[in-house]
Amino acid sequence: MKTERIDLPQHELPCKWYNIAPDLPRPLDPPLHPGTGQPLTASDLAPIFPMALLQQEMSNEPFIEIPDDVREVYKYYRPTPVFRARNLEKALDTPAHIYYKYEGASPAGSHKPNTAIAQAFYNKQEGIKRLSTETGAGQWGCALSMACSIFDLKCAVYMVRISFEQKPYRRVMMETWGAECFPSPSERTATGRKVLAEYPDTPGSLGIAISEAMEDCLQHDDTHYALGSVLNHVMLHQTVIGEEALKQMELAGEYPDIIIGCHGGGSNFAGMSFPFAGRKLREGLNTRIIAAEPQASPTLTRGPFAYDFGDLSGMTPLLRMYTLGHGFIPAPIHAGGLRYHGAAPLVSLLLNTGVIEAQAFHQVECYEAALLFARTERWIPAPETSHAIRCAITEAEKCKLTGEKKVILFNFSGHGLLDLSGYDKFLHGELTDYAMPDEDLRQGLASLPKIPGG
Amino acid sequence: MKTERIDLPQHELPCKWYNIAPDLPRPLDPPLHPGTGQPLTASDLAPIFPMALLQQEMSNEPFIEIPDDVREVYKYYRPTPVFRARNLEKALDTPAHIYYKYEGASPAGSHKPNTAIAQAFYNKQEGIKRLSTETGAGQWGCALSMACSIFDLKCAVYMVRISFEQKPYRRVMMETWGAECFPSPSERTATGRKVLAEYPDTPGSLGIAISEAMEDCLQHDDTHYALGSVLNHVMLHQTVIGEEALKQMELAGEYPDIIIGCHGGGSNFAGMSFPFAGRKLREGLNTRIIAAEPQASPTLTRGPFAYDFGDLSGMTPLLRMYTLGHGFIPAPIHAGGLRYHGAAPLVSLLLNTGVIEAQAFHQVECYEAALLFARTERWIPAPETSHAIRCAITEAEKCKLTGEKKVILFNFSGHGLLDLSGYDKFLHGELTDYAMPDEDLRQGLASLPKIPGG
Repeated sequence: MKTERIDLPQHELPCKWYNIAPDLPRPLDPPLHPGTGQPLTASDLAPIFPMALLQQEMSNEPFIEIPDDVREVYKYYRPTPVFRARNLEKALDTPAHIYYKYEGASPAGSHKPNTAIAQAFYNKQEGIKRLSTETGAGQWGCALSMACSIFDLKCAVYMVRISFEQKPYRRVMMETWGAECFPSPSERTATGRKVLAEYPDTPGSLGIAISEAMEDCLQHDDTHYALGSVLNHVMLHQTVIGEEALKQMELAGEYPDIIIGCHGGGSNFAGMSFPFAGRKLREGLNTRIIAAEPQASPTLTRGPFAYDFGDLSGMTPLLRMYTLGHGFIPAPIHAGGLRYHGAAPLVSLLLNTGVIEAQAFHQVECYEAALLFARTERWIPAPETSHAIRCAITEAEKCKLTGEKKVILFNFSGHGLLDLSGYDKFLHGELTDYAMPDEDLRQGLASLPKIPGG
Repeated sequence: MKTERIDLPQHELPCKWYNIAPDLPRPLDPPLHPGTGQPLTASDLAPIFPMALLQQEMSNEPFIEIPDDVREVYKYYRPTPVFRARNLEKALDTPAHIYYKYEGASPAGSHKPNTAIAQAFYNKQEGIKRLSTETGAGQWGCALSMACSIFDLKCAVYMVRISFEQKPYRRVMMETWGAECFPSPSERTATGRKVLAEYPDTPGSLGIAISEAMEDCLQHDDTHYALGSVLNHVMLHQTVIGEEALKQMELAGEYPDIIIGCHGGGSNFAGMSFPFAGRKLREGLNTRIIAAEPQASPTLTRGPFAYDFGDLSGMTPLLRMYTLGHGFIPAPIHAGGLRYHGAAPLVSLLLNTGVIEAQAFHQVECYEAALLFARTERWIPAPETSHAIRCAITEAEKCKLTGEKKVILFNFSGHGLLDLSGYDKFLHGELTDYAMPDEDLRQGLASLPKIPGG
């Protein structure tokens, strides 16, 4: 069987990131100050982010130039290939054409370096010496550790305790690149100490870890905070994925009918889909764009569209987004990167305006899809990525029923070589599904803040 | 700093493997039958290998065509990039130019699929349904599992018990691709049962695992045996690495003065270096070609050049090679892929005739080199690969002293994402060196067989 790997030569690496803001059906609701509930200004965030990133966060320019120093680092692993999944198509006996963009090629193994490198660069430019951040499954913490080693910054990562214990290799990776990695909650912050005093055996959560990383930042003059998803500038940096994919699909001579990405906070989904969503909005195309999320943390399919905090302690700005409530603690599924109560405001607005759609999947059906993928297309997907694959297979199976020759493109956001324990359980019949109980949702939503004048 | 990644377009993927046999300074000594000590014929090996591989094993043709079906599978991850290690050069403050070929790009994470895919293909063509093999650290077992899933073959892997227990992710990877993986020694073979009866707590060895895999093959009519190193046809398949590198160095506008690969059985070293060694032999070049091996298993630097078995039980043919004796059990260093008593006959002959040289390194200095590499060049090397990096750094440091602008090219044989426990120990000061004691060498050499008429 012919292998169709669509490569871009290095000189085709995009020079610009795509900013979807000016193409949106309506403007984003403003982020609000967590204390006053009033719209936030750039200066409110200056203690934690460099000005270049804050400008990008609020920019209305359709394209923003990628700095040369960032492009040079991208060239370690970019452009990444697009594959036609012919073996998977054959196994499914579907008339659909399935393509995937392979973002597992970076040294950290996922799409996360696309923004980590940019964030480290802008912080370095502004004279910052150290970055603090949180990480769930560890993909983001590893990517930022690597990026900090490139730009000679120190890096402190607060890793959700359950992942810290279950995935020690992730910590070792971060340390190999010179970062410090702490299990969260930790004794290093007020938030951490408070949680530990109340719940000494807590597995931790992303919401707690974000509070700790922000506290760490505010306690250290030389330190800024970095976030791996949710914010506009993170989505922006990830669009290098979709910008490349646009060119690669042109080389393939096909345009996708369906674009799919897995969804936790939104970064890989946005990175792949926004350039296509922009064309859809500008040219009135029919492209279906689907965010694939876990049933255990079904933010987009079951949460309300409301203002909420990004962290447990309520230190972050209030963002209008789909949310399960910042007090929601998702079940311990293996796709740790999708265990988040909120969603990017940009993704949320596109969903609220019907530009994109969302589907939720169970853990076991995602591992079934991942196994079929590994046995046909060879690459072993991260548990997060398996949600996109499950969704793509579902759409391809529909094509088999209808006989339609749809073109499906999904983002393979990262490999699963550091997450093989989930495969072990799945292969030996020990994996279970966790659908979110209504009671958990009710409790999570009870944590939604009252907005003054909101 | 500019990233120099030298890519080859897909249509430059080599069409032929390079066979060094006709360029050797003298012919290889014949392999001998383990029972009679007489030169082996192809028919002696027909029960375990397909005829196409046996023809390659004994071929004197300088180039052998890569079948289209094999080239198509190579295209999942080949051509692999060559990088100029500018950040490493800067950190070393050396005038040397350091290049490396990145073989970590395959789904299995190392160079091993280059031969696994070819071996699975030829066995499938001959109607074989199942392959048995052994694996040490697991790189080879994973590669063959993946290749068997591509060509719809069953696969049974005997994994050295200590690695089976220390690296459970490797087993999970093999199972994900549909293979069975057994800790060796096992109860499945006479060799395994005998060893277990005598030494119930044995950590196992490659020599034991090879005996078990060969027994498994001989017990099953539908099964052939596959080996990931040592044999001529394995070296042949790996030359796709060096054939690509020849073209890439031409694109870089430089020709290497020094070629380096780590050495266990010889496959990645040969794959990178043989095409350059062939030019050296044909054109009288001065290229230095260095095999980097561990002090804990210093086959090339301290073993005699003698006929020996490849396995513990003496089931394999007798090969003339550098060897520490098939009874030698190397210390449990993390570079499990380099823990082998013997060396490929082709590599051995080139060393014996002065075409190549060998250097041995200690474990800790190799991890130091790996850490510097990860923090300058981002990719995290496998413990095996770290030996090549250590050697390259040593040569680059010599250039700093002499002011020579030598061009160094080494093979980055695989990434270390499934071997991070060694980094963990190193980073926390818990790693030690294991130089081979003279007494172990004496005992190992005592196991060398007496060859009738030898």
